[in-house]
Amino acid sequence: MPNYRLTLCYDGTRWKGWQKQGNTEQTIQGKLETLLSRLLDQPVEVAGSGRTDAGAHAKMQVASFRAKTPMSTQEILAGLRQYLPADIGAIDLTQAEPRFHARLSCTGKTYVYRIWNSDLPNVFERNYLYHLHEPLDLRAMRQAAEDLCGTHDYRAFCSLKRFKRSTVRRVEAITIEDLGPELRFVVSGDGFLYHMVRILVGTLLAVGRGQLAPDEMGDILACQDRRRAGETVPACGLCLVDVRY
Amino acid sequence: MPNYRLTLCYDGTRWKGWQKQGNTEQTIQGKLETLLSRLLDQPVEVAGSGRTDAGAHAKMQVASFRAKTPMSTQEILAGLRQYLPADIGAIDLTQAEPRFHARLSCTGKTYVYRIWNSDLPNVFERNYLYHLHEPLDLRAMRQAAEDLCGTHDYRAFCSLKRFKRSTVRRVEAITIEDLGPELRFVVSGDGFLYHMVRILVGTLLAVGRGQLAPDEMGDILACQDRRRAGETVPACGLCLVDVRY
Repeated sequence: MPNYRLTLCYDGTRWKGWQKQGNTEQTIQGKLETLLSRLLDQPVEVAGSGRTDAGAHAKMQVASFRAKTPMSTQEILAGLRQYLPADIGAIDLTQAEPRFHARLSCTGKTYVYRIWNSDLPNVFERNYLYHLHEPLDLRAMRQAAEDLCGTHDYRAFCSLKRFKRSTVRRVEAITIEDLGPELRFVVSGDGFLYHMVRILVGTLLAVGRGQLAPDEMGDILACQDRRRAGETVPACGLCLVDVRY
Repeated sequence: MPNYRLTLCYDGTRWKGWQKQGNTEQTIQGKLETLLSRLLDQPVEVAGSGRTDAGAHAKMQVASFRAKTPMSTQEILAGLRQYLPADIGAIDLTQAEPRFHARLSCTGKTYVYRIWNSDLPNVFERNYLYHLHEPLDLRAMRQAAEDLCGTHDYRAFCSLKRFKRSTVRRVEAITIEDLGPELRFVVSGDGFLYHMVRILVGTLLAVGRGQLAPDEMGDILACQDRRRAGETVPACGLCLVDVRY
């Protein structure tokens, strides 16, 4: 059966995340499967490059699915654009190689976490930012961010308590862009554990507030204890921006 | 009584416009008056630089009010920021001259109307854009826009059917910025009639589609007939961006 690759974006504010859960249709995956199954008149299963959390966003998410249909990719794409709700956008649809799988073929991803670090309001982007008033020590955060990169067991940065698979990941880079009142954490890696990006950012914020020292990161990684790392920052600031194959 | 000048911004998506109407509190003015009256423990009446329509936005709106209070402007501003909903932002509050009045003292305003002119989705700014698929003749629209500027009776560009006051206004400039798939109409003037900016843009779109000739603008102004001008484009694309005194 022909294999398809779909590039999507979404505003996750009102969604319960990517992954379908039981009967609820309030997930991006569930919504896509329902819509594609109707559009192509057959049961369609959609694989995503990975889950995104409830309330988190994607400027670029990639999904794959198999279907046999007389419709052209342009016709399927037009159907998706017509019937998807306004907060999910179908950017592109192409035929993919037979072995392509959105999750298994994925070699890397980049997330952005946006913080609005000001007393000033930001009403127009409020759903895409985590609003924080306290002053943050950017230099200390940048120093700590370097130590959080590399190939490590990131168990201390994961919300799950039991692990079936390896918790070793490679974080290629964590950069913190200072855009006036906005701080933008850009995190790239080969894969991420559950809540990992949000806990990495929460740990860097603890450094920025002086609650953790910038040179403690190696210890926290080594101890593999979730309680030593920082808070899980809210999902609204998180956005998947790049998926690589 | 001391006089105050408040600078605001708002995402108008879920609001019934600026001006309070009867009992409904779903207006920006109503919300502000309720909040300031509680905060300052006295009845407060708020004047805006002008009304904005239901669903229209403001990056800058100016309001004035009088009150006698032992609170400092910083304290009042902090109270507003604490209690205003996330889609209304208090940018600044200062003491104003005794004669200052947000509407009567206003000498000019600038509105921006944003059109997303593409088949591509724009999920993150969907509430701030009017999404239009058709190709538009930008050169013809720019030519027509010039003829719509100047000091004229803009009765043909107003949704009201009866006029108590003068319908003569001065439009200083209408520029159309081409930002890739986004077209941004920037309209400046000394004041605007009801729906005037939305009808000006709707008329320019009719020119862009070839439904009106670019050299018809003078005739439409002269005939003072609303039916000759274009549609009233949706409020979601409209944003008040500057108020001058």
